[in-house]
Amino acid sequence: MIHFYILTLFPEMVMSGLNTSIIGRAMENGFLEIEAINIRDYTLDKHKKVDDYPYGGGAGMVMQAQPVYDAWKSVIDRIGGTENVRTIFMTPIGKTFKQDYAKELAKEEHIIMLCGHYEGIDERVIEEIVTDYMSLGDFVLTGGELPAMVMVDAISRMVPGVLTNVDSKSTESFENNLLEYPQYTRPVEWNGKKVPDILLSGNHQLVDEWRYEQSLDRTRKFRPDILVNENIVE
Amino acid sequence: MIHFYILTLFPEMVMSGLNTSIIGRAMENGFLEIEAINIRDYTLDKHKKVDDYPYGGGAGMVMQAQPVYDAWKSVIDRIGGTENVRTIFMTPIGKTFKQDYAKELAKEEHIIMLCGHYEGIDERVIEEIVTDYMSLGDFVLTGGELPAMVMVDAISRMVPGVLTNVDSKSTESFENNLLEYPQYTRPVEWNGKKVPDILLSGNHQLVDEWRYEQSLDRTRKFRPDILVNENIVE
Repeated sequence: MIHFYILTLFPEMVMSGLNTSIIGRAMENGFLEIEAINIRDYTLDKHKKVDDYPYGGGAGMVMQAQPVYDAWKSVIDRIGGTENVRTIFMTPIGKTFKQDYAKELAKEEHIIMLCGHYEGIDERVIEEIVTDYMSLGDFVLTGGELPAMVMVDAISRMVPGVLTNVDSKSTESFENNLLEYPQYTRPVEWNGKKVPDILLSGNHQLVDEWRYEQSLDRTRKFRPDILVNENIVE
Repeated sequence: MIHFYILTLFPEMVMSGLNTSIIGRAMENGFLEIEAINIRDYTLDKHKKVDDYPYGGGAGMVMQAQPVYDAWKSVIDRIGGTENVRTIFMTPIGKTFKQDYAKELAKEEHIIMLCGHYEGIDERVIEEIVTDYMSLGDFVLTGGELPAMVMVDAISRMVPGVLTNVDSKSTESFENNLLEYPQYTRPVEWNGKKVPDILLSGNHQLVDEWRYEQSLDRTRKFRPDILVNENIVE
Protein backbone atom coordinates (compact mmCIF):
# COMPACT_ATOMS: atom_id res chain seq x y z
CA MET A 1 0.00 0.00 0.00
CA ILE A 2 1.15 3.48 -0.82
CA HIS A 3 0.78 6.29 1.71
CA PHE A 4 0.64 9.93 0.69
CA TYR A 5 1.20 12.62 3.31
CA ILE A 6 0.47 16.10 2.02
CA LEU A 7 1.90 18.94 4.10
CA THR A 8 -0.26 21.97 3.42
CA LEU A 9 -2.03 25.02 4.83
CA PHE A 10 -5.23 23.91 3.01
CA PRO A 11 -5.91 20.31 4.06
CA GLU A 12 -9.64 20.40 3.25
CA MET A 13 -9.05 21.67 -0.27
CA VAL A 14 -6.59 18.86 -0.91
CA MET A 15 -8.81 16.11 0.45
CA SER A 16 -11.99 17.19 -1.31
CA GLY A 17 -10.12 17.58 -4.57
CA LEU A 18 -8.89 13.99 -4.43
CA ASN A 19 -12.15 12.37 -3.50
CA THR A 20 -13.31 11.53 -7.03
CA SER A 21 -14.67 8.18 -8.08
CA ILE A 22 -11.49 6.29 -8.89
CA ILE A 23 -9.18 7.65 -6.18
CA GLY A 24 -11.95 7.64 -3.58
CA ARG A 25 -12.76 4.00 -4.29
CA ALA A 26 -9.07 3.04 -4.20
CA MET A 27 -8.83 4.58 -0.72
CA GLU A 28 -11.93 2.70 0.46
CA ASN A 29 -10.53 -0.54 -0.93
CA GLY A 30 -7.23 -0.07 0.87
CA PHE A 31 -4.96 0.36 -2.15
CA LEU A 32 -3.77 3.72 -1.01
CA GLU A 33 -3.97 6.17 1.83
CA ILE A 34 -4.00 9.92 1.48
CA GLU A 35 -3.61 12.19 4.46
CA ALA A 36 -3.41 15.96 4.50
CA ILE A 37 -1.41 17.40 7.39
CA ASN A 38 -2.10 20.98 8.37
CA ILE A 39 1.23 22.76 8.78
CA ARG A 40 -0.51 25.38 10.91
CA ASP A 41 -1.17 22.74 13.59
CA TYR A 42 2.58 22.59 14.20
CA THR A 43 3.49 26.23 14.68
CA LEU A 44 4.86 27.17 18.10
CA ASP A 45 3.69 30.74 17.57
CA LYS A 46 0.94 31.66 20.03
CA HIS A 47 -1.05 33.41 17.27
CA LYS A 48 -0.78 30.33 15.03
CA LYS A 49 1.29 32.32 12.56
CA VAL A 50 3.24 30.26 10.01
CA ASP A 51 4.85 32.98 7.89
CA ASP A 52 6.92 36.13 8.21
CA TYR A 53 8.52 38.83 6.05
CA PRO A 54 11.37 37.82 3.75
CA TYR A 55 14.88 38.78 4.84
CA GLY A 56 16.30 41.25 2.36
CA GLY A 57 12.88 42.78 1.68
CA GLY A 58 10.39 42.33 -1.10
CA ALA A 59 6.68 41.71 -1.38
CA GLY A 60 4.89 38.74 0.13
CA MET A 61 5.38 36.46 3.07
CA VAL A 62 7.60 33.41 3.46
CA MET A 63 6.60 30.24 5.28
CA GLN A 64 8.80 29.67 8.32
CA ALA A 65 11.08 26.68 8.79
CA GLN A 66 9.84 25.58 12.24
CA PRO A 67 6.19 24.62 11.52
CA VAL A 68 7.13 23.01 8.20
CA TYR A 69 9.88 20.97 9.80
CA ASP A 70 7.77 19.88 12.76
CA ALA A 71 4.85 18.85 10.53
CA TRP A 72 7.26 16.78 8.44
CA LYS A 73 8.95 15.34 11.54
CA SER A 74 5.59 14.19 12.93
CA VAL A 75 5.10 12.08 9.81
CA ILE A 76 8.64 10.73 9.89
CA ASP A 77 8.23 9.75 13.54
CA ARG A 78 5.06 7.81 12.72
CA ILE A 79 6.69 6.05 9.76
CA GLY A 80 9.71 5.25 11.94
CA GLY A 81 12.49 7.07 10.10
CA THR A 82 13.43 8.61 6.77
CA GLU A 83 14.53 5.38 5.10
CA ASN A 84 12.56 4.73 1.89
CA VAL A 85 10.62 7.96 2.33
CA ARG A 86 10.47 10.43 -0.55
CA THR A 87 9.81 14.05 0.35
CA ILE A 88 8.73 15.89 -2.78
CA PHE A 89 8.61 19.66 -3.06
CA MET A 90 6.64 21.20 -5.90
CA THR A 91 8.78 23.98 -7.34
CA PRO A 92 9.58 25.45 -10.74
CA ILE A 93 13.22 24.45 -10.25
CA GLY A 94 12.16 20.80 -10.14
CA LYS A 95 12.26 18.11 -12.79
CA THR A 96 9.18 18.21 -14.99
CA PHE A 97 6.69 15.58 -13.89
CA LYS A 98 6.03 12.92 -16.55
CA GLN A 99 4.27 9.57 -16.80
CA ASP A 100 7.56 7.73 -16.19
CA TYR A 101 7.85 9.40 -12.77
CA ALA A 102 4.25 8.45 -12.00
CA LYS A 103 5.11 4.81 -12.67
CA GLU A 104 8.33 4.97 -10.68
CA LEU A 105 6.77 6.71 -7.67
CA ALA A 106 3.83 4.27 -7.65
CA LYS A 107 6.30 1.66 -6.30
CA GLU A 108 7.07 3.71 -3.18
CA GLU A 109 5.51 3.09 0.21
CA HIS A 110 5.68 6.57 1.71
CA ILE A 111 5.53 9.80 -0.24
CA ILE A 112 5.48 13.14 1.56
CA MET A 113 4.49 16.15 -0.50
CA LEU A 114 5.36 19.62 0.67
CA CYS A 115 3.10 22.37 -0.65
CA GLY A 116 4.41 25.91 -0.55
CA HIS A 117 2.11 28.88 -0.42
CA TYR A 118 2.57 32.64 -0.34
CA GLU A 119 6.02 33.59 -1.62
CA GLY A 120 7.62 30.28 -0.80
CA ILE A 121 9.23 28.44 2.10
CA ASP A 122 12.38 29.25 4.05
CA GLU A 123 15.18 27.67 2.03
CA ARG A 124 16.81 26.12 5.09
CA VAL A 125 13.98 23.69 5.81
CA ILE A 126 13.69 22.80 2.13
CA GLU A 127 17.38 21.85 2.10
CA GLU A 128 16.86 19.87 5.30
CA ILE A 129 13.92 17.64 4.36
CA VAL A 130 13.33 17.54 0.58
CA THR A 131 14.57 14.56 -1.47
CA ASP A 132 12.90 15.36 -4.82
CA TYR A 133 12.18 18.66 -6.56
CA MET A 134 9.32 18.38 -9.03
CA SER A 135 7.60 20.81 -11.34
CA LEU A 136 4.31 20.34 -13.16
CA GLY A 137 5.23 22.66 -16.00
CA ASP A 138 6.33 26.15 -16.93
CA PHE A 139 3.61 28.16 -15.24
CA VAL A 140 3.09 29.81 -11.87
CA LEU A 141 0.35 28.86 -9.39
CA THR A 142 -0.85 30.33 -6.11
CA GLY A 143 0.37 27.28 -4.21
CA GLY A 144 1.73 23.77 -4.37
CA GLU A 145 -1.59 22.11 -3.53
CA LEU A 146 -2.96 21.68 -7.07
CA PRO A 147 0.32 20.26 -8.43
CA ALA A 148 0.48 17.87 -5.46
CA MET A 149 -3.09 16.73 -6.15
CA VAL A 150 -2.25 16.20 -9.84
CA MET A 151 0.77 14.10 -8.91
CA VAL A 152 -1.15 12.02 -6.35
CA ASP A 153 -3.81 11.35 -8.98
CA ALA A 154 -1.32 10.36 -11.68
CA ILE A 155 0.74 8.18 -9.31
CA SER A 156 -2.32 6.52 -7.76
CA ARG A 157 -3.59 5.37 -11.16
CA MET A 158 -0.34 3.43 -11.56
CA VAL A 159 -0.65 1.57 -8.24
CA PRO A 160 -1.61 -2.06 -8.99
CA GLY A 161 -5.28 -2.67 -8.23
CA VAL A 162 -6.39 0.95 -8.38
CA LEU A 163 -7.63 0.85 -11.96
CA THR A 164 -10.21 -1.86 -12.55
CA ASN A 165 -11.15 -3.11 -15.99
CA VAL A 166 -13.94 -0.59 -16.06
CA ASP A 167 -11.52 2.33 -15.83
CA SER A 168 -8.44 1.18 -17.62
CA LYS A 169 -7.99 0.94 -21.29
CA SER A 170 -5.65 -1.09 -23.43
CA THR A 171 -4.27 1.96 -25.17
CA GLU A 172 -3.77 5.16 -23.26
CA SER A 173 -1.93 8.33 -24.14
CA PHE A 174 1.86 8.10 -23.68
CA GLU A 175 1.70 4.31 -23.44
CA ASN A 176 3.64 3.03 -26.47
CA ASN A 177 4.47 6.69 -27.14
CA LEU A 178 1.16 7.27 -28.90
CA LEU A 179 -1.79 9.53 -28.21
CA GLU A 180 -5.26 8.11 -27.65
CA TYR A 181 -7.56 7.34 -30.56
CA PRO A 182 -10.99 9.06 -30.71
CA GLN A 183 -13.89 7.43 -28.88
CA TYR A 184 -17.56 7.17 -29.83
CA THR A 185 -20.64 5.94 -28.02
CA ARG A 186 -24.40 5.84 -28.59
CA PRO A 187 -26.32 7.03 -30.51
CA VAL A 188 -24.99 6.03 -33.95
CA GLU A 189 -26.04 9.39 -35.31
CA TRP A 190 -25.83 12.59 -33.30
CA ASN A 191 -26.33 16.11 -34.60
CA GLY A 192 -26.01 14.83 -38.18
CA LYS A 193 -22.70 13.12 -37.46
CA LYS A 194 -22.33 9.35 -37.75
CA VAL A 195 -19.97 7.04 -35.88
CA PRO A 196 -17.25 5.78 -38.29
CA ASP A 197 -18.64 2.66 -40.02
CA ILE A 198 -15.67 0.52 -39.11
CA LEU A 199 -16.46 0.77 -35.39
CA LEU A 200 -19.87 -0.75 -36.09
CA SER A 201 -18.47 -3.56 -38.24
CA GLY A 202 -17.92 -6.06 -35.45
CA ASN A 203 -14.55 -6.93 -37.00
CA HIS A 204 -12.14 -6.60 -34.09
CA GLN A 205 -9.03 -6.77 -36.22
CA LEU A 206 -10.18 -3.95 -38.46
CA VAL A 207 -11.23 -1.90 -35.42
CA ASP A 208 -7.81 -2.39 -33.83
CA GLU A 209 -6.04 -1.42 -37.04
CA TRP A 210 -8.21 1.68 -37.47
CA ARG A 211 -7.60 2.75 -33.88
CA TYR A 212 -3.87 2.23 -34.23
CA GLU A 213 -3.82 4.34 -37.39
CA GLN A 214 -5.83 7.07 -35.65
CA SER A 215 -3.40 7.09 -32.72
CA LEU A 216 -0.47 7.22 -35.09
CA ASP A 217 -2.00 10.04 -37.17
CA ARG A 218 -2.77 12.13 -34.11
CA THR A 219 0.68 11.60 -32.68
CA ARG A 220 2.34 12.51 -35.99
CA LYS A 221 0.16 15.61 -36.22
CA PHE A 222 0.14 16.88 -32.63
CA ARG A 223 3.12 15.31 -30.87
CA PRO A 224 5.75 14.08 -33.33
CA ASP A 225 8.28 14.55 -30.51
CA ILE A 226 6.97 11.57 -28.50
CA LEU A 227 6.89 9.23 -31.51
CA VAL A 228 10.10 7.31 -30.96
CA ASN A 229 9.58 4.32 -33.21
CA GLU A 230 6.88 4.09 -35.85
CA ASN A 231 7.35 0.36 -36.18
CA ILE A 232 6.16 -0.57 -32.72
CA VAL A 233 2.76 -2.21 -33.01
CA GLU A 234 1.11 -3.37 -29.81
CA MET B 1 -14.17 40.55 -15.36
CA ILE B 2 -13.31 37.03 -16.44
CA HIS B 3 -15.88 34.25 -16.20
CA PHE B 4 -14.90 30.61 -15.97
CA TYR B 5 -17.51 27.93 -16.66
CA ILE B 6 -16.28 24.45 -15.83
CA LEU B 7 -18.29 21.62 -17.37
CA THR B 8 -17.75 18.59 -15.14
CA LEU B 9 -19.28 15.58 -13.44
CA PHE B 10 -17.66 16.70 -10.16
CA PRO B 11 -18.72 20.33 -9.56
CA GLU B 12 -18.13 20.24 -5.79
CA MET B 13 -14.60 18.95 -6.17
CA VAL B 14 -13.80 21.74 -8.60
CA MET B 15 -15.27 24.51 -6.49
CA SER B 16 -13.72 23.44 -3.20
CA GLY B 17 -10.35 23.03 -4.85
CA LEU B 18 -10.39 26.60 -6.12
CA ASN B 19 -11.50 28.25 -2.94
CA THR B 20 -8.05 29.07 -1.58
CA SER B 21 -7.08 32.41 -0.17
CA ILE B 22 -6.06 34.28 -3.30
CA ILE B 23 -8.61 32.94 -5.77
CA GLY B 24 -11.39 32.99 -3.17
CA ARG B 25 -10.68 36.62 -2.34
CA ALA B 26 -10.56 37.54 -6.04
CA MET B 27 -14.02 36.05 -6.47
CA GLU B 28 -15.35 37.95 -3.47
CA ASN B 29 -13.87 41.18 -4.81
CA GLY B 30 -15.47 40.69 -8.21
CA PHE B 31 -12.33 40.22 -10.29
CA LEU B 32 -13.43 36.85 -11.51
CA GLU B 33 -16.30 34.41 -11.45
CA ILE B 34 -15.97 30.66 -11.37
CA GLU B 35 -18.94 28.41 -11.93
CA ALA B 36 -18.98 24.64 -12.11
CA ILE B 37 -21.76 23.20 -14.27
CA ASN B 38 -22.81 19.63 -13.61
CA ILE B 39 -23.03 17.82 -16.96
CA ARG B 40 -25.27 15.23 -15.32
CA ASP B 41 -27.97 17.89 -14.84
CA TYR B 42 -28.36 18.02 -18.62
CA THR B 43 -28.80 14.38 -19.54
CA LEU B 44 -32.14 13.43 -21.09
CA ASP B 45 -31.70 9.86 -19.86
CA LYS B 46 -34.30 9.00 -17.25
CA HIS B 47 -31.71 7.23 -15.08
CA LYS B 48 -29.43 10.31 -15.25
CA LYS B 49 -26.86 8.27 -17.14
CA VAL B 50 -24.17 10.31 -18.96
CA ASP B 51 -21.98 7.55 -20.41
CA ASP B 52 -22.18 4.39 -22.46
CA TYR B 53 -19.95 1.65 -23.91
CA PRO B 54 -17.49 2.63 -26.63
CA TYR B 55 -18.37 1.64 -30.19
CA GLY B 56 -15.82 -0.85 -31.44
CA GLY B 57 -15.37 -2.35 -27.98
CA GLY B 58 -12.72 -1.88 -25.33
CA ALA B 59 -12.67 -1.25 -21.61
CA GLY B 60 -14.25 1.75 -19.97
CA MET B 61 -17.17 4.05 -20.63
CA VAL B 62 -17.39 7.07 -22.89
CA MET B 63 -19.25 10.27 -22.03
CA GLN B 64 -22.15 10.83 -24.43
CA ALA B 65 -22.48 13.81 -26.74
CA GLN B 66 -25.97 14.95 -25.72
CA PRO B 67 -25.47 15.92 -22.05
CA VAL B 68 -22.09 17.51 -22.80
CA TYR B 69 -23.50 19.53 -25.67
CA ASP B 70 -26.59 20.67 -23.75
CA ALA B 71 -24.53 21.70 -20.71
CA TRP B 72 -22.27 23.74 -23.00
CA LYS B 73 -25.26 25.18 -24.90
CA SER B 74 -26.86 26.37 -21.64
CA VAL B 75 -23.75 28.47 -20.96
CA ILE B 76 -23.60 29.80 -24.54
CA ASP B 77 -27.25 30.81 -24.35
CA ARG B 78 -26.63 32.76 -21.16
CA ILE B 79 -23.56 34.49 -22.62
CA GLY B 80 -25.53 35.27 -25.77
CA GLY B 81 -23.53 33.42 -28.42
CA THR B 82 -20.16 31.85 -29.13
CA GLU B 83 -18.39 35.05 -30.16
CA ASN B 84 -15.34 35.71 -28.01
CA VAL B 85 -15.91 32.50 -26.06
CA ARG B 86 -13.07 29.99 -25.70
CA THR B 87 -14.05 26.39 -25.07
CA ILE B 88 -11.00 24.55 -23.79
CA PHE B 89 -10.73 20.78 -23.64
CA MET B 90 -8.03 19.25 -21.48
CA THR B 91 -6.48 16.45 -23.51
CA PRO B 92 -3.04 14.93 -24.09
CA ILE B 93 -3.32 15.90 -27.78
CA GLY B 94 -3.46 19.57 -26.76
CA LYS B 95 -0.81 22.23 -26.69
CA THR B 96 1.22 22.16 -23.49
CA PHE B 97 -0.01 24.84 -21.10
CA LYS B 98 2.62 27.46 -20.29
CA GLN B 99 2.79 30.82 -18.55
CA ASP B 100 2.38 32.64 -21.88
CA TYR B 101 -1.03 31.00 -22.36
CA ALA B 102 -2.01 31.97 -18.83
CA LYS B 103 -1.27 35.59 -19.68
CA GLU B 104 -3.06 35.43 -23.02
CA LEU B 105 -6.16 33.72 -21.62
CA ALA B 106 -6.34 36.19 -18.71
CA LYS B 107 -7.51 38.77 -21.27
CA GLU B 108 -10.59 36.76 -22.21
CA GLU B 109 -14.06 37.40 -20.86
CA HIS B 110 -15.58 33.94 -21.09
CA ILE B 111 -13.69 30.68 -20.79
CA ILE B 112 -15.50 27.37 -20.83
CA MET B 113 -13.52 24.35 -19.70
CA LEU B 114 -14.67 20.88 -20.62
CA CYS B 115 -13.50 18.14 -18.26
CA GLY B 116 -13.53 14.59 -19.53
CA HIS B 117 -13.81 11.64 -17.23
CA TYR B 118 -13.88 7.88 -17.64
CA GLU B 119 -12.42 6.88 -21.01
CA GLY B 120 -13.12 10.19 -22.69
CA ILE B 121 -15.90 12.02 -24.49
CA ASP B 122 -17.67 11.18 -27.74
CA GLU B 123 -15.47 12.73 -30.43
CA ARG B 124 -18.42 14.30 -32.27
CA VAL B 125 -19.30 16.73 -29.49
CA ILE B 126 -15.64 17.62 -28.99
CA GLU B 127 -15.37 18.54 -32.68
CA GLU B 128 -18.57 20.55 -32.38
CA ILE B 129 -17.81 22.79 -29.40
CA VAL B 130 -14.08 22.88 -28.58
CA THR B 131 -11.93 25.83 -29.73
CA ASP B 132 -8.69 25.03 -27.83
CA TYR B 133 -7.03 21.73 -26.99
CA MET B 134 -4.76 22.02 -23.99
CA SER B 135 -2.55 19.59 -22.12
CA LEU B 136 -0.94 20.07 -18.73
CA GLY B 137 1.94 17.73 -19.46
CA ASP B 138 2.91 14.23 -20.47
CA PHE B 139 1.05 12.27 -17.85
CA VAL B 140 -2.36 10.63 -17.52
CA LEU B 141 -4.99 11.61 -14.94
CA THR B 142 -8.35 10.17 -13.93
CA GLY B 143 -10.16 13.23 -15.29
CA GLY B 144 -9.88 16.73 -16.66
CA GLU B 145 -10.91 18.42 -13.41
CA LEU B 146 -7.47 18.84 -11.84
CA PRO B 147 -5.89 20.24 -15.04
CA ALA B 148 -8.83 22.63 -15.40
CA MET B 149 -8.34 23.80 -11.80
CA VAL B 150 -4.62 24.29 -12.42
CA MET B 151 -5.34 26.38 -15.50
CA VAL B 152 -8.00 28.48 -13.75
CA ASP B 153 -5.53 29.16 -10.93
CA ALA B 154 -2.67 30.11 -13.27
CA ILE B 155 -4.90 32.30 -15.49
CA SER B 156 -6.62 33.99 -12.54
CA ARG B 157 -3.30 35.13 -11.07
CA MET B 158 -2.67 37.03 -14.30
CA VAL B 159 -6.00 38.92 -14.21
CA PRO B 160 -5.27 42.55 -13.23
CA GLY B 161 -6.26 43.21 -9.61
CA VAL B 162 -6.20 39.59 -8.46
CA LEU B 163 -2.70 39.67 -7.01
CA THR B 164 -2.23 42.38 -4.44
CA ASN B 165 1.14 43.63 -3.27
CA VAL B 166 1.03 41.13 -0.47
CA ASP B 167 0.95 38.19 -2.86
CA SER B 168 2.93 39.31 -5.84
CA LYS B 169 6.64 39.54 -6.06
CA SER B 170 8.93 41.51 -8.26
CA THR B 171 10.69 38.44 -9.53
CA GLU B 172 8.79 35.26 -10.11
CA SER B 173 9.75 32.07 -11.88
CA PHE B 174 9.49 32.27 -15.69
CA GLU B 175 9.29 36.06 -15.59
CA ASN B 176 12.43 37.27 -17.35
CA ASN B 177 13.13 33.61 -18.12
CA LEU B 178 14.67 33.05 -14.71
CA LEU B 179 13.79 30.82 -11.79
CA GLU B 180 13.06 32.27 -8.36
CA TYR B 181 15.84 33.02 -5.91
CA PRO B 182 15.77 31.32 -2.47
CA GLN B 183 13.79 32.98 0.32
CA TYR B 184 14.52 33.24 4.04
CA THR B 185 12.54 34.51 7.00
CA ARG B 186 12.88 34.64 10.79
CA PRO B 187 14.66 33.43 12.83
CA VAL B 188 18.18 34.39 11.69
CA GLU B 189 19.44 31.01 12.87
CA TRP B 190 17.42 27.84 12.54
CA ASN B 191 18.65 24.31 13.15
CA GLY B 192 22.25 25.55 13.03
CA LYS B 193 21.77 27.26 9.68
CA LYS B 194 22.11 31.02 9.30
CA VAL B 195 20.42 33.31 6.81
CA PRO B 196 22.99 34.55 4.23
CA ASP B 197 24.67 37.65 5.71
CA ILE B 198 23.95 39.79 2.67
CA LEU B 199 20.17 39.58 3.25
CA LEU B 200 20.70 41.11 6.69
CA SER B 201 22.97 43.89 5.39
CA GLY B 202 20.24 46.41 4.67
CA ASN B 203 21.99 47.24 1.39
CA HIS B 204 19.23 46.93 -1.19
CA GLN B 205 21.52 47.06 -4.16
CA LEU B 206 23.68 44.23 -2.86
CA VAL B 207 20.56 42.22 -1.98
CA ASP B 208 19.17 42.70 -5.50
CA GLU B 209 22.47 41.69 -7.07
CA TRP B 210 22.73 38.61 -4.87
CA ARG B 211 19.16 37.56 -5.71
CA TYR B 212 19.75 38.07 -9.40
CA GLU B 213 22.89 35.94 -9.24
CA GLN B 214 21.00 33.23 -7.32
CA SER B 215 18.23 33.22 -9.93
CA LEU B 216 20.77 33.05 -12.72
CA ASP B 217 22.72 30.24 -11.04
CA ARG B 218 19.59 28.17 -10.46
CA THR B 219 18.39 28.68 -13.99
CA ARG B 220 21.78 27.73 -15.43
CA LYS B 221 21.86 24.64 -13.23
CA PHE B 222 18.26 23.42 -13.42
CA ARG B 223 16.69 24.96 -16.51
CA PRO B 224 19.31 26.16 -18.99
CA ASP B 225 16.65 25.70 -21.68
CA ILE B 226 14.60 28.71 -20.51
CA LEU B 227 17.62 31.03 -20.26
CA VAL B 228 17.27 32.94 -23.52
CA ASN B 229 19.49 35.91 -22.86
CA GLU B 230 22.00 36.12 -20.04
CA ASN B 231 22.40 39.85 -20.50
CA ILE B 232 18.89 40.83 -19.49
CA VAL B 233 19.05 42.49 -16.08
CA GLU B 234 15.78 43.71 -14.63
